[in-house]
Amino acid sequence: MIKSPFLNEEYAVTEQIFGALNWQRDPQNLFDPIRYILHLGGKRIRPMLTLAGANLFEGDRHGKVRDWALAVELFHNFSLMHDDIMDEANLRRGYATVHKKYSINAAILSGDMALIESYRLLQHPDNDVAAQASKLFTKTAAEVCMGQQMDVDFETRDDVTISEYIQMIEWKTSVLLACSIQLGAMLANANESQQKHAYEFGKNIGIAFQIQDDILDTFGTTAKVGKRIGGDILQNKKTYLYLKSLALLDEVKAAQLRHLFSSIAEDEDEKIDMVTSLFDEANVRVYAEELKNEYKSLALSHLEAIAEANSNKKKELVDFADYLIQRDK
Amino acid sequence: MIKSPFLNEEYAVTEQIFGALNWQRDPQNLFDPIRYILHLGGKRIRPMLTLAGANLFEGDRHGKVRDWALAVELFHNFSLMHDDIMDEANLRRGYATVHKKYSINAAILSGDMALIESYRLLQHPDNDVAAQASKLFTKTAAEVCMGQQMDVDFETRDDVTISEYIQMIEWKTSVLLACSIQLGAMLANANESQQKHAYEFGKNIGIAFQIQDDILDTFGTTAKVGKRIGGDILQNKKTYLYLKSLALLDEVKAAQLRHLFSSIAEDEDEKIDMVTSLFDEANVRVYAEELKNEYKSLALSHLEAIAEANSNKKKELVDFADYLIQRDK
Repeated sequence: MIKSPFLNEEYAVTEQIFGALNWQRDPQNLFDPIRYILHLGGKRIRPMLTLAGANLFEGDRHGKVRDWALAVELFHNFSLMHDDIMDEANLRRGYATVHKKYSINAAILSGDMALIESYRLLQHPDNDVAAQASKLFTKTAAEVCMGQQMDVDFETRDDVTISEYIQMIEWKTSVLLACSIQLGAMLANANESQQKHAYEFGKNIGIAFQIQDDILDTFGTTAKVGKRIGGDILQNKKTYLYLKSLALLDEVKAAQLRHLFSSIAEDEDEKIDMVTSLFDEANVRVYAEELKNEYKSLALSHLEAIAEANSNKKKELVDFADYLIQRDK
Repeated sequence: MIKSPFLNEEYAVTEQIFGALNWQRDPQNLFDPIRYILHLGGKRIRPMLTLAGANLFEGDRHGKVRDWALAVELFHNFSLMHDDIMDEANLRRGYATVHKKYSINAAILSGDMALIESYRLLQHPDNDVAAQASKLFTKTAAEVCMGQQMDVDFETRDDVTISEYIQMIEWKTSVLLACSIQLGAMLANANESQQKHAYEFGKNIGIAFQIQDDILDTFGTTAKVGKRIGGDILQNKKTYLYLKSLALLDEVKAAQLRHLFSSIAEDEDEKIDMVTSLFDEANVRVYAEELKNEYKSLALSHLEAIAEANSNKKKELVDFADYLIQRDK
């Protein structure tokens, strides 16, 4: 488990939520895989953002914020279960992925159940709030699927642009962070403009977060990240690192890089080494860090724009944003 | 496409809905498999029930009934896409299943998208109605997953009881029919008691419907049913036919049947023939027909209990119920 030095109150609550989560529900074979993946830990960023979103304003008056925090984490884990099948990933947070530990069928069906359970948790005694939350959540869920599809499509396309890449990570990753914090703000009766700024903070910090994720996938270490380094390279993922390197490298080197991404590697380690060398030659990590910081600044401007929010919580969110995009795991 | 001789108005509307459904949405690889499976046809029972549920009462005043009818059919097709992967089914309505035509990954992700799209379609301008619908739909969706899990679990269990089997088909199949007709009644402002009777009509006719489905899986013909006959037998599905035969046969024959269901067949046709012979010896089809008719009677008593409903529509639903449980395809 990785602990952020910020948002300690929210972190403590997520620990309580997940610590108390001891589903003994039938059919066990349906709920066990959900419990398994939820207990693998993870950074709990999304539920922490929901809790922080509520704390930015007057807090949650219907006692629903824990359910909603669990809902966004469950949704996230639904998408992980299904994405890990599609990506043929064996490891998640250093442990066997659900389809490896149980079966592909279990990962499909328990994933479905997790998604549906997240809708159940999102219910609210005030029907206006319930409808508003359901709309936001459904829009977000659709975008997450569309982002995943773009990601899949990119693997076999050789004309992906950087702006398409940004659209893909916005949908696949960042809108759920945006939705998570807005849901918290919604519970705390934030007005429309406040909710929108909270959303935009989450969305832009989410894009920065994903750029950091891509950086770690190539430049991190397995021990810290908890999965194989170079996975994106082996899957020919058209990340910013790849797309920007193509633009930065000379024609010969760009052609080499393109060639390396045109097929499945026979020698996986060799492919990872060669691509990483080309990334280094392009000095692309510096550009990725710059882009990341641009999205971070944009995120912070939206946070700043919420004049009425609790200033301590805003400060904590600024620090949390820093942590999210500078983490090494 | 199979046309019921009843509910012609509802049938015509479903034809319009699905005829007009020409999604050209991006990413195409995400929406194409959904369009594909929706256009394979099918009996459209669920959307017809939603439309009939609205027509039983004062009709739909917000113009949402077509969206909701599409929502329940989309949900049904989500579950088909995922179940067909789990069941390793190659044929659906006489055509390649989604994972066979596209890929397992496409069937997973497009299935997810179909589920999420069904939630989007269920939105309603009146937040009270929206919240009520979302609750019913979410409860139903969870039960469908639990029913599917029970079905999977039954394949490797040798102590399944008939009442467990009924619970399984109630969840896996019949609650969605129940939900479909209740959603229609809900749109038409039916009161709680009316909605409950509509639900119970749908639930009990759904159980009868599934018993008929199990009968057809063994005693139907591929040409009519559109999939391989004997699929349940090859998968060792503990249907009513199997469970009741065990109770009806003498010890020696029951042991033979149990033995046949204890492993994967080497000669598939031989296994189907041997099991079907034992079913015939037990005369189990007669018992299955009786059980089916009991659930049908229960269904009709709930329909009868809705005194205020449109009597022509009630009569049509009685005939539709007959059609559903006597169909040969």
